[in-house]
Amino acid sequence: MINQTIMNQIGCDKYTEHRQELIAAFKEVRQQTLNLTSTLSAEDMQIQSMPDASPTKWHMAHTSWFFEAFILAKFQSGFSWHDPMYHKLYNSYYNALGEPFSRAKRGMITRPSVDEIRDYRENINARMTTLLTECRDAQFKEIAPLLVIGLNHEQQHQELILTDIKHALFQNPTYPAVFPHDGARETQPDQRWLAVEGGEVSIGYAGDGFCFDNELPRHRVLLDDFEISNRLITNAEWLEFMQDGGYEKPLLWLSDGWAWKNENQAKAPFYWVHEDDEWQAFSLAGLRSIKPNEPVTHINYYEADAYARWTGCRLPTEQEWEHAATLLSAKDADEVLCLSQGLSQGLRWEWTSSAYLPYPGFCPAIGNVGEYNGKFMINQMILRGASGATQCGHSRFSYRNFFGPSARWQFSGVRLVRLD
Amino acid sequence: MINQTIMNQIGCDKYTEHRQELIAAFKEVRQQTLNLTSTLSAEDMQIQSMPDASPTKWHMAHTSWFFEAFILAKFQSGFSWHDPMYHKLYNSYYNALGEPFSRAKRGMITRPSVDEIRDYRENINARMTTLLTECRDAQFKEIAPLLVIGLNHEQQHQELILTDIKHALFQNPTYPAVFPHDGARETQPDQRWLAVEGGEVSIGYAGDGFCFDNELPRHRVLLDDFEISNRLITNAEWLEFMQDGGYEKPLLWLSDGWAWKNENQAKAPFYWVHEDDEWQAFSLAGLRSIKPNEPVTHINYYEADAYARWTGCRLPTEQEWEHAATLLSAKDADEVLCLSQGLSQGLRWEWTSSAYLPYPGFCPAIGNVGEYNGKFMINQMILRGASGATQCGHSRFSYRNFFGPSARWQFSGVRLVRLD
Amino acid sequence: MINQTIMNQIGCDKYTEHRQELIAAFKEVRQQTLNLTSTLSAEDMQIQSMPDASPTKWHMAHTSWFFEAFILAKFQSGFSWHDPMYHKLYNSYYNALGEPFSRAKRGMITRPSVDEIRDYRENINARMTTLLTECRDAQFKEIAPLLVIGLNHEQQHQELILTDIKHALFQNPTYPAVFPHDGARETQPDQRWLAVEGGEVSIGYAGDGFCFDNELPRHRVLLDDFEISNRLITNAEWLEFMQDGGYEKPLLWLSDGWAWKNENQAKAPFYWVHEDDEWQAFSLAGLRSIKPNEPVTHINYYEADAYARWTGCRLPTEQEWEHAATLLSAKDADEVLCLSQGLSQGLRWEWTSSAYLPYPGFCPAIGNVGEYNGKFMINQMILRGASGATQCGHSRFSYRNFFGPSARWQFSGVRLVRLD
Amino acid sequence: MINQTIMNQIGCDKYTEHRQELIAAFKEVRQQTLNLTSTLSAEDMQIQSMPDASPTKWHMAHTSWFFEAFILAKFQSGFSWHDPMYHKLYNSYYNALGEPFSRAKRGMITRPSVDEIRDYRENINARMTTLLTECRDAQFKEIAPLLVIGLNHEQQHQELILTDIKHALFQNPTYPAVFPHDGARETQPDQRWLAVEGGEVSIGYAGDGFCFDNELPRHRVLLDDFEISNRLITNAEWLEFMQDGGYEKPLLWLSDGWAWKNENQAKAPFYWVHEDDEWQAFSLAGLRSIKPNEPVTHINYYEADAYARWTGCRLPTEQEWEHAATLLSAKDADEVLCLSQGLSQGLRWEWTSSAYLPYPGFCPAIGNVGEYNGKFMINQMILRGASGATQCGHSRFSYRNFFGPSARWQFSGVRLVRLD
Repeated sequence: MINQTIMNQIGCDKYTEHRQELIAAFKEVRQQTLNLTSTLSAEDMQIQSMPDASPTKWHMAHTSWFFEAFILAKFQSGFSWHDPMYHKLYNSYYNALGEPFSRAKRGMITRPSVDEIRDYRENINARMTTLLTECRDAQFKEIAPLLVIGLNHEQQHQELILTDIKHALFQNPTYPAVFPHDGARETQPDQRWLAVEGGEVSIGYAGDGFCFDNELPRHRVLLDDFEISNRLITNAEWLEFMQDGGYEKPLLWLSDGWAWKNENQAKAPFYWVHEDDEWQAFSLAGLRSIKPNEPVTHINYYEADAYARWTGCRLPTEQEWEHAATLLSAKDADEVLCLSQGLSQGLRWEWTSSAYLPYPGFCPAIGNVGEYNGKFMINQMILRGASGATQCGHSRFSYRNFFGPSARWQFSGVRLVRLD
Repeated sequence: MINQTIMNQIGCDKYTEHRQELIAAFKEVRQQTLNLTSTLSAEDMQIQSMPDASPTKWHMAHTSWFFEAFILAKFQSGFSWHDPMYHKLYNSYYNALGEPFSRAKRGMITRPSVDEIRDYRENINARMTTLLTECRDAQFKEIAPLLVIGLNHEQQHQELILTDIKHALFQNPTYPAVFPHDGARETQPDQRWLAVEGGEVSIGYAGDGFCFDNELPRHRVLLDDFEISNRLITNAEWLEFMQDGGYEKPLLWLSDGWAWKNENQAKAPFYWVHEDDEWQAFSLAGLRSIKPNEPVTHINYYEADAYARWTGCRLPTEQEWEHAATLLSAKDADEVLCLSQGLSQGLRWEWTSSAYLPYPGFCPAIGNVGEYNGKFMINQMILRGASGATQCGHSRFSYRNFFGPSARWQFSGVRLVRLD
Repeated sequence: MINQTIMNQIGCDKYTEHRQELIAAFKEVRQQTLNLTSTLSAEDMQIQSMPDASPTKWHMAHTSWFFEAFILAKFQSGFSWHDPMYHKLYNSYYNALGEPFSRAKRGMITRPSVDEIRDYRENINARMTTLLTECRDAQFKEIAPLLVIGLNHEQQHQELILTDIKHALFQNPTYPAVFPHDGARETQPDQRWLAVEGGEVSIGYAGDGFCFDNELPRHRVLLDDFEISNRLITNAEWLEFMQDGGYEKPLLWLSDGWAWKNENQAKAPFYWVHEDDEWQAFSLAGLRSIKPNEPVTHINYYEADAYARWTGCRLPTEQEWEHAATLLSAKDADEVLCLSQGLSQGLRWEWTSSAYLPYPGFCPAIGNVGEYNGKFMINQMILRGASGATQCGHSRFSYRNFFGPSARWQFSGVRLVRLD
Repeated sequence: MINQTIMNQIGCDKYTEHRQELIAAFKEVRQQTLNLTSTLSAEDMQIQSMPDASPTKWHMAHTSWFFEAFILAKFQSGFSWHDPMYHKLYNSYYNALGEPFSRAKRGMITRPSVDEIRDYRENINARMTTLLTECRDAQFKEIAPLLVIGLNHEQQHQELILTDIKHALFQNPTYPAVFPHDGARETQPDQRWLAVEGGEVSIGYAGDGFCFDNELPRHRVLLDDFEISNRLITNAEWLEFMQDGGYEKPLLWLSDGWAWKNENQAKAPFYWVHEDDEWQAFSLAGLRSIKPNEPVTHINYYEADAYARWTGCRLPTEQEWEHAATLLSAKDADEVLCLSQGLSQGLRWEWTSSAYLPYPGFCPAIGNVGEYNGKFMINQMILRGASGATQCGHSRFSYRNFFGPSARWQFSGVRLVRLD
């Protein structure tokens, strides 16, 4: 997994020099999707348990379609679609490429089968490998940025495969376990407040490697001094909030949050099940007792915000988060953010109090991939960091993840900032 | 398929004499479920395309559970559940046996897999066969009526397997074909009106074989004379109705029907697709051109009723239908009803103008199977006859099928009665 | 109120002889609408508390429009609409007269005001009185049947004014009282079972006065012998049902009824409020304690049916009800049905187990009023008798009222028939 | 109207010196609510045409309740509620004061009547005037800040009275006119781009008069240089956008905006009606032809954003807007913002690209009024400026109005910023 991990560090102007590493990264990322799904059955991969989630199978096809539609269709000589119908079925939301198939009905497509989609993946892999290997440098230079986007895109879907299958399997009262549980390394340290100096600071991606368009342009903002926690809120702390009636006190909640809570009768983090006289949580390794010292997960923005108000603290802004992460990691990275190294580690995407909006001077990526990020800049809040389900090397301090304030099925958590 | 066909003709008091035929019928019916699903993939069998439909897989399990819950649990010595969770997952609606799993979420259960459900079927088959073979006559006498109900129940689900998978596959814009098309024998003869004398007639099951509780008690009703068509309405006739603006004239429709039509923007029978400048219809053999002389199908009660009003005729009552069928079949069965002989023949369940209500003196079957029919006697209309998807020998002239007035996914059709 | 009461007894062929009584009846019925609404404010009359209900104001206008659209438009020389927009706003559902205004938005029409609608009523009254007084006999003969329909139609809306305003005022946590409470005369006698002989009996309207098209044609049906209760189920009896867990036992309920109950969390009749440690019921005279010996009201078909099953009895069919009423009233009318004499008396529309369907040979009224009844013959159950909100002389033994099985806002009750 | 206009300029520490002006302002503001509703009928004031809007009557009562609950209840000796039920009915959303009555059901409360609510207003006016006049300075000092909040609160509801009644009357196909049309002074000047220098600028309220808690704390932000339009987008320009297919091009829209557009089949600004072969717009003076040179209004954030993208420009951030307004008004106020002077003038609330979030260090107002602003800081976008429906003196450059991105019933418009 070496190449996939360093792929994003390669300078954009040096892609041609690193052609072999990029081809190797392509193979690794593509293989990793298969690895993640190896214990799932055809039936598991078929279903869509809510409109916001997608079937595993769809993720497997869509990530292949991305390379077919954005790279092969343009650069492969004698190109023809693997199957023209796939072009319709697996276009997620790129209106520029034709009307996408209805999102809410993705789970209704039983054919092509999982096996046919595996064939599709192999076919794309073969054609891509040939193209990447055989094209001239001038063309590789054009292809490489799209390739790296495509691989980052696939990594995003790798995380979604995990979040979505978790949601799907949770519908089953047998609480199936599909992954072994490999022992938590998630225990949180004692609470300390880390002082961060404000002033005029730079926000946005700074290096010469890959980043998404929404991390740019790098720009200056003014920040006050603040203190940020060295760790995430734990299950034990969340239980205290629950026991103190946190879910029953309207004054702790945003108005929309209170309405959400009532409508959904939320009383605990998502996936928490009160059984055998204790709180347990559904995981990809089945139903397990809550571990008090692990970071709480699967709480939405409304819950994170209410929790912060209950403590008398607040959530960080995305600028504070990024600045703190950058600054403190220079000293002691572990202390602050601990960007996750893999599924086993299990840290969380951290809710910030910032809405997902364009940076000043934001300019969407050029061409059809321009629909990638910009059009979602409304009704969503920023999460920073990474989760245990994020692929190694995928995230970075300037990375902007985003979900609506009621979303709970992501591996989200809470880190606090202290009020003065 | 001999035993399955004659099973319902065996006198209820002669089940013990026919033990071997009933055991053979059990095997045949059970096998037939597998036959019907042999060309479906695990993914096909997983999905539920609307709350009214169920996954193929669920039908396969539920029909097995029926034998386990109503026969093995009571009569097998040393009984234990194949899997206690199955008892919860595959109870359809028998509240007396515990709270059934949410109907609308049947498609969310990916585990047990199709293979595990096939194992479950075999396990039930083996235990049932042993029990049926080895029990004493006195016990067989008790078991046999439940066995025959269970087999008829499975036959009903065999039809539902076909109607539900058709609906599921229709969600796919590729219109998959899962069955070969074996050539229609559905061509309708020329229209003739068959005069039927009324008077005081008997309605309800009369023989000494099997019937459902809702076909009893046999009772007397008064009927006027009437004339009934010798055949079903054809696609060509329905096209005329459409071309005459039948779907746009409110005065032809029941008030609820007009609201249904507007809400669903219905313009043609369900599964009709206007493509390549002609009307085609989706079938289990894929998308095919409409055959003008075949009986129209997949129309709901509202459409059937509006069509009848457009012609100046009306639908028969269920009593008229049963009386006509009985009377005329004594003369020339082919002329009137042509109960279907299998999937290839393709006749239709015929909408009547009768609501599904208990017959005078109706008494639900005793025991837990008493929830079988009676509790659905509201908000539904009676269909009589059989369809091309009905198993041979399953239906009879007194058979009462029933669906809500907006249901279109069944193989339903229209036969008219002439107004004086 | 003499003329309005006898209006429906006048032979249809003798309308011209009774022109003065009919003109007087017209005035009485029209005045009665104003009487019923005299204690309501403009705001009360404005609102629509659910799509099934209509604003008082709308009823006042619609009943006037009925005369304008079906009589004046056809028979008044030099006719022009009082206001062409009213023709659109106050057409309830007569598609033959143009597209009706959206039912669910009736409460959104604040202009015309209540005062303008009172003017409209006066205008219609004046034009109708002139027409009825001055037209020749030949024309009166044509007009009179429409006039009598129009007056019966207005009487139906008088009952709806009461049921709908009750629903509207119930939304208000102050439980406003708009009518004085005049002391109940609703106490039910001791329970006795009245034996009724079956056989071939006639059903449908028999006299030469007015009836609705759905009461015809009179026809013969076969009935078994049965025994019917001499009285309605009381509040005390309903409380027993509740205390015995009637609302929590799925086996007592129709499947759709159980779903309805769960969705609406129904635990008692509609308008029952548990306050100050006792059950009270909202009435047009405000919130009052339940009187144990009064007939229960505001229960829907599902509840009536579940109650009957709980007692081991059943609901009558509409034919049984009509036959019993006719037969026993010949002996002792009070004993059986006690058709109500006015608002104060408070009997109930009685749920029957019959679906609302056309009688054999049913033929809708001719002309545009033909949309009156027939198009509602689906998804509804028959209620027989009358309620305390029914106008005197409006109902009769052959009268067929109908509502969907979940409707609770009508003054409905339960009378049982004993199983053999 | 002098005192009401200057009320917000009075220094918070000088309220006692200006007691008479504040008492006069109280009277003026309270009277203005009556003035605005003088041409509405009781029925007009009753209805609620969507959950987001409220009945006029409710606004009249709620603004009175605000003074009763936050001032009289605390400061009036011998206080008792005018009617305890009003305390429940007219609490909008202050959970700290008890559970508010369901927002969506405000239109269902017909009693108290409009007249009773007028009495309630007079009662509050009298008690408030006595209290304000007779209390000692020390107490006045405590009361005055709440008084000024209450008056600003009532002014906000005065605008909502107009926006909500416009929505209510629009439901009526007669398009009632309730206000005279007094001739537009809304014509927009020629387009010019005004250069604004960025740098480190201060944002938030700066004076010593009244402002809402959400305008504080004043803080420093960094802005780039930018160019802002001297005027609002006109109807003529919007028509061009429509004619160019602006509503049919997905690439112009945010993803949620495109979904909103499709679901609502939006094709033009809200209140635009295509009749008699031209676009007309519903106004409080009835249906009138679109005036090409007036600013477009009743467009939501999605539309404003799509329009900006179509032009190649963008919306301003709220910081840019505030900075430009402050800076340029120092030179020539008319050129930039033209804050409206009353109903007749008709400028618009201007959508910004900023989400409604707390300023750094935001601290909600103390006490129960603390629920005023903070809890709405999610899922909403900022609008700046004022509209023709805003009361004189109510808004200011630091004023933050906010609505969800799909809200169209406010008097909203578009001002552009030029991309570099």
